[in-house]
Amino acid sequence: MNAPSRLLVLGGDAAGMTAASHVRRHAPQVEVVVVEKTHHTSNSMCGIPFYVGAEIADADDLVVRTPDEFRAMGMTVHMRTEALAIDPVARRVRVRDLESGAERDEPYDRLLYTVGAHVVPPPVPGVREHGHVVHTLDDGEHLRAHLDQQDGERERGEDKPGDRHVVVVGAGYIGIEIAEALVRRGFDATVIDRSPQVLGSLDADMAALVQRRMEDFGIRVRLGETFTEARGLGGSSVAVVCERGVYETEVLVIATGAQPSVAMARAAGCRVGPSGALVVDPQGRTTVDGIWAAGDCVETLQLVSGQPVNVQLGTHANKQGKAAGIDIVAAVRGTGRGEAAFPGVVGTAVTKLCEWEIARTGVGEDEAAAAGIDAAAVRFTGTAKASYLPDPGEVHVKMLAEQGTGRVLGAQMVGSGNVAKRIDVAATWCQLGVTVQQAQFLDLSYSPPFGGVWDLLQVGARKLVRELGLSPVL
Amino acid sequence: MNAPSRLLVLGGDAAGMTAASHVRRHAPQVEVVVVEKTHHTSNSMCGIPFYVGAEIADADDLVVRTPDEFRAMGMTVHMRTEALAIDPVARRVRVRDLESGAERDEPYDRLLYTVGAHVVPPPVPGVREHGHVVHTLDDGEHLRAHLDQQDGERERGEDKPGDRHVVVVGAGYIGIEIAEALVRRGFDATVIDRSPQVLGSLDADMAALVQRRMEDFGIRVRLGETFTEARGLGGSSVAVVCERGVYETEVLVIATGAQPSVAMARAAGCRVGPSGALVVDPQGRTTVDGIWAAGDCVETLQLVSGQPVNVQLGTHANKQGKAAGIDIVAAVRGTGRGEAAFPGVVGTAVTKLCEWEIARTGVGEDEAAAAGIDAAAVRFTGTAKASYLPDPGEVHVKMLAEQGTGRVLGAQMVGSGNVAKRIDVAATWCQLGVTVQQAQFLDLSYSPPFGGVWDLLQVGARKLVRELGLSPVL
Repeated sequence: MNAPSRLLVLGGDAAGMTAASHVRRHAPQVEVVVVEKTHHTSNSMCGIPFYVGAEIADADDLVVRTPDEFRAMGMTVHMRTEALAIDPVARRVRVRDLESGAERDEPYDRLLYTVGAHVVPPPVPGVREHGHVVHTLDDGEHLRAHLDQQDGERERGEDKPGDRHVVVVGAGYIGIEIAEALVRRGFDATVIDRSPQVLGSLDADMAALVQRRMEDFGIRVRLGETFTEARGLGGSSVAVVCERGVYETEVLVIATGAQPSVAMARAAGCRVGPSGALVVDPQGRTTVDGIWAAGDCVETLQLVSGQPVNVQLGTHANKQGKAAGIDIVAAVRGTGRGEAAFPGVVGTAVTKLCEWEIARTGVGEDEAAAAGIDAAAVRFTGTAKASYLPDPGEVHVKMLAEQGTGRVLGAQMVGSGNVAKRIDVAATWCQLGVTVQQAQFLDLSYSPPFGGVWDLLQVGARKLVRELGLSPVL
Repeated sequence: MNAPSRLLVLGGDAAGMTAASHVRRHAPQVEVVVVEKTHHTSNSMCGIPFYVGAEIADADDLVVRTPDEFRAMGMTVHMRTEALAIDPVARRVRVRDLESGAERDEPYDRLLYTVGAHVVPPPVPGVREHGHVVHTLDDGEHLRAHLDQQDGERERGEDKPGDRHVVVVGAGYIGIEIAEALVRRGFDATVIDRSPQVLGSLDADMAALVQRRMEDFGIRVRLGETFTEARGLGGSSVAVVCERGVYETEVLVIATGAQPSVAMARAAGCRVGPSGALVVDPQGRTTVDGIWAAGDCVETLQLVSGQPVNVQLGTHANKQGKAAGIDIVAAVRGTGRGEAAFPGVVGTAVTKLCEWEIARTGVGEDEAAAAGIDAAAVRFTGTAKASYLPDPGEVHVKMLAEQGTGRVLGAQMVGSGNVAKRIDVAATWCQLGVTVQQAQFLDLSYSPPFGGVWDLLQVGARKLVRELGLSPVL
C-alpha cells in the first residue's frame, strides 16, 4: 500500500540500530541501509574501561550485535564508512569507504542521524601523536593493544622513563574509570583536570568526597592543573607537561569529555540548540524534513530544571532510538506521528569508582540556581547497612528540594554500598514531581543488610521537610 | 494553657517510643509513662538472626535506645511490667511487675497501645517445653545463650542425639534467617512448614526459586510437613515428630509467624478488623475515645489491593508511631487532628537469604485475584551486572500490572545482587499509581556493575505493555 522507501542510518550504535531494528521488524517494505565509521556496531561504551583493564578478555564481548547479525535481519550495513555531507534537497549523503578511500552517494527517503559524539582533545602540541583518546570501542582496542605491548616489552626487561605510569587528562567518569582500571593492572595513575573538582556532574562538596576516595585507592589527583604539551621521550614514553609540573608516563589517556557531533546535520540546515546538540521533537524529528536524530548528538529536556541539555548515555540513546523508529514507521505508513514520545531526562547517572558507588539524579545546587529554582539542600552521612552490623560502611547523601512546594529536585549519593539502584527511587521522584512530604510516607524497604529502618532517601526527605519549614515532619 | 495530662504507653518498642519521644519533645507538659514487658526498649527485631548467629557480639548492639536514655528525656519507664487489662471508662490500666509479681493500676488521660504481636506456637505436645520462640530480643538472648552453652558442652566432648542439628518450624523470613545463621555457625539445619512453599509473601513460582537456593546453601527444606510433637531425648536433645518423619535435633526453633496482640484492647472495646488487627485511623486513633494504637498490632490499608492488612514491620511502626505522636500532641493542645496521616502500605519487604537478595512489593497473583483485580503477570530472568562482566549473577523478576489501565500492581525479585534497593523503585510506582507505559520512560540509572542498559524493572514494564496490549511498546 505504500511505495517502498529507503531509510539511511548514519551511525550504527545504540540509537541508530534500535531504530533500524524497529523499522525492519514493523515496516519490512522499507530498505534499511546503515553507514558506520568504526569496526563495530551496537556496543557498550560503558564497558570499555573493564576491557582496557583486562577484566574482560575480548572486545567482542562488548558488542551487543555484530554487523552480520543486522545483515541477517535484512539490513544493508556498510562498515568503516564515513558520512561526509548531507544534501537534504536531493536526499542523498556523500560517504567515503575508509578502507579504499572511494567516495559515493547514498540516497535516502528518510535519514536517521545517529553519529553520536566525539572527543575534542585539548589543543596542545603533541596530544594527537602521544595521547590515547578513549571514546569508541576501536579506541579501547588501540589502548588495550598498546598496554599489552608495553607489558610484553617489560617482560623482556626493557626499561624506560615513566614505566608503569599512566596520566589521564580529564577527571570525569570515563577518565577516573580508566585510571582505576589501570591501577588494578598495576600502574601508578595520575588524573589531571583543569577544573577545581573531579566529576563535574556532582556538587563540589560531594565531588571532594570522591576525590578523597580516589586518593585512598592510590590515584594521584591534580586539579586546577592545565595540560600544555605532550613531548615524546623515546619509545612510548611521554612527558606530560602541565603548568605546575611535568609527569613522565608510559601511557597518556585523553578523557576530556565528548562534544555532540552536529556539524554535518547543521550544514544540512538542522537547528542546533543552546546545549550545542541537535534540536529534536519527542519523536526524534529534527527541524529539517525527512531527517530524524537520536542519541548522543541530540538535545533533550532536563525535566527538573526545564533547561535543554545534551546527555550522552546509552540508556537514553536506546529510548530515543526506539521513539524515532516508531515515528519513522508511522511516517512510512502515513499514519501521522509515532505514538512514543521521549519525554526528557532527569540527569540520572551512576558508576562504580574505587569500590565506591557514585550516583546522582535531578539537579545540583548550581544547576538549580542557574535555572532560577529556589532550592534547599541537606547533606548527611549514613551507613550502607544497619549500623550494628560488622562493616556497616558509609554513604554520603545530598538532597535538594524546592522552597514552597517541597518538590524533590535532586539527590547525590556516594559510598560503599546500596547506592546505585537506590538513586532510581529519587530519579522516579524527580521525574514524577514527588514532594518531600509525600516521600516520607512511601513504603520503602528495610532490612539490616541494606540500611537502617528509615531509608536514607527518607531521612533526607524528613530533613528537607524541616529545612523548608513544611509539615508534617515525620 | 492546657491542664497537665498523662500519656500511658503500653509497649516500649518502635511505635510506642517514637510516639512517646515526639510527645516529650513537643508537649513537655505531658507526663509520659511507659510500661514494657521485656528487658529491652526500642530494638531491632530484624537484627536478632545476626545476633543468634554470633555475627553481632552483644544484644545491646541491637538496642536503639535504652530505658535510661528515655528516662533522661524525662519519661517514666517501667521495665518488666506487663499490662493486664484496660479500664477505658476509669482510664486506668492494671499492670503487674514481673519481677515482684505485684499488681497496681496506672491511670491515664490518653493511652497508646503499642504492644506488638506474639508468636502462637503450634498446639502440639512438648512445644512449650522444648521449643525456642524467636520474637523478642529476650527470646534471642535465650536462644543465643542456649547455643553458646551447647558449644561449651561440645568442647567438653559430650555427645548427644541430634548434635549440631537445628530444626526450624516455620519457613517465613525469620525462620529461614535463623536457619541460615545457624548453618553459618556450623549447624545442619532443617526447615519444616506445613504449607506447600517457603515465604508465603512471594508467589509460589518465585518461592520455588528461593527454596532451591536454600537447598544449594545447605538447608534441608520439608514442606507440606505437619509438626505433631516435640519429645525430649535427655539433655537438650529433642525429637521433632512430624507426620512424615522424626528429626533429632539439639535446637528446636519455633518461627511460625506472629499474631497481632489485640486481646486487651478488644476487651476494652476497640474494634478489630478483618485482618485480626486493631482498626485505627490514619492518626492512630482506635474506635475507643482516648486510646491510640500503632505498630504490629494495628490494621492498615494495602494501597494496591484496597484490602485491610496487618503488616508487622519496624518501618511502619516508626511512621505510625510518629503520626500517632503528632496527633496526641494536637489532642493535648486541642488543635484538632494531627497533620500527619499514615496512608497505608504497599507490602514492600526485603531480606538477604543464603547470599541472595529477596524483595517484593505490591500484590502477588493470589492477592490480586482475591481483591478482584484483573492482573497480567510476566516473569523473566536477567543478570545482576552487565552480562559481559565476570560473574554477572542472576536475578529472577516477576511483575504484575492491571489489565486496561496498565497500573503497576507488584514486583518480586530474587537473585544474587542489586535487588533489594531496586524494589523501592517498584514500591514507589505501586504507591503512586504509575503505569507500565510511564515506567518505560523513566530516567533510571545504568552502569555495567549494576545491570544492563534497560533496568530490569523497565524490561518488565515493556513486557507488560506488550502483554496487556497497550502502546507504545518501547
